[in-house]
Amino acid sequence: MAPVTDTSSLDGLRERLRRFVADRQWEPFHTPKNLAMALAGEAGELLAEFQWLTPEESAAVVTADPQAAARIRSELADVTAYLVHLAMALDVDLVANAHHKLDEVERRYPPGA
Amino acid sequence: MAPVTDTSSLDGLRERLRRFVADRQWEPFHTPKNLAMALAGEAGELLAEFQWLTPEESAAVVTADPQAAARIRSELADVTAYLVHLAMALDVDLVANAHHKLDEVERRYPPGA
Amino acid sequence: MAPVTDTSSLDGLRERLRRFVADRQWEPFHTPKNLAMALAGEAGELLAEFQWLTPEESAAVVTADPQAAARIRSELADVTAYLVHLAMALDVDLVANAHHKLDEVERRYPPGA
Amino acid sequence: MAPVTDTSSLDGLRERLRRFVADRQWEPFHTPKNLAMALAGEAGELLAEFQWLTPEESAAVVTADPQAAARIRSELADVTAYLVHLAMALDVDLVANAHHKLDEVERRYPPGA
Repeated sequence: MAPVTDTSSLDGLRERLRRFVADRQWEPFHTPKNLAMALAGEAGELLAEFQWLTPEESAAVVTADPQAAARIRSELADVTAYLVHLAMALDVDLVANAHHKLDEVERRYPPGA
Repeated sequence: MAPVTDTSSLDGLRERLRRFVADRQWEPFHTPKNLAMALAGEAGELLAEFQWLTPEESAAVVTADPQAAARIRSELADVTAYLVHLAMALDVDLVANAHHKLDEVERRYPPGA
Repeated sequence: MAPVTDTSSLDGLRERLRRFVADRQWEPFHTPKNLAMALAGEAGELLAEFQWLTPEESAAVVTADPQAAARIRSELADVTAYLVHLAMALDVDLVANAHHKLDEVERRYPPGA
Repeated sequence: MAPVTDTSSLDGLRERLRRFVADRQWEPFHTPKNLAMALAGEAGELLAEFQWLTPEESAAVVTADPQAAARIRSELADVTAYLVHLAMALDVDLVANAHHKLDEVERRYPPGA
């Protein structure tokens, strides 16, 4: 297994995730339907970290509660991974796709409106 | 407003999103609690696109149904944007954070196990 | 189509929902997997109603914003319907099942602890 | 603490849940915003039970996998409980509200259309 050499970009992460799935022969499970469920499930676990906090407490949690911060980072990583897996399954470039939508959103919500 | 010059990396997307929020003075709304809700809400809208499809149909949707494909790309963009906003609010580098979790996941699920 | 005569209990609602699906021959779509997605999708739409509100504003929304209140009631109805559909697909009595879990939760979190 | 005498109806469950919260003085946490998060979080945990199953496997899971069945019933109970808590916080009668929405849905989707 060749080492991942690019750990700073989304491209490098995508290649590592692609190889992770291939090495385990998990491709049959990675349908868009299943991956959308996994993504939403992980987003749901993130909610659980914040549900009883006030908005102010949620803003301070990373410094105030190291154990919660570690769980939150772990859930964020799971959401990131499934989002990248889903984009691969749908053959979507996440960054270009987000810019495309932002072109529209910026027109719909002009600053100062 | 200076143009976004880097449209290929997550860094460029993050800067555009940061400016988008600053230009509208929406920072007070961008607590981790609120952003986790927005992320999970958009992930829920993605589910709706796939819920009545078979796994096979979900794999073909991008080519078989251009209107659904456009909605799915739009929802993916929303999920991407809120994930980047949440990472900014929590001061987390999404790519480095995902690699850190993968180090652990790869140990926990060795290939061929 | 015989009228639903019991509109006050969960049993009556379940029978109406069962007939709704049968009349449209939608049973093949009502697998637990699909219904869990529909339930989570609707729960995600509920989030969207509350995501930018403070907790205090969320407590006042029903009286302060009649349009938001109507949307919230509509989303609550969708969550209720899919929860009942899912329980039917899994052959679970929702009320008995909730009491069974509460027996355990009450032991785990004794009052005053 | 008086025993719950009505364990067959949603009314009895609602009263038990109301008392559960009051006995622990958790009312301040039970804002609609927080409860919508808890509901969506539990719906997300349900997804995780079904995400790698085929639709056919999901239909058989209750009989084929007793451990998964127990987890699913536990998650269903959590979703039920938070839905009832949220309805209490919003002063909504869940059954009447679902029938009201069904009046509209039945008109929008006539059988045989």
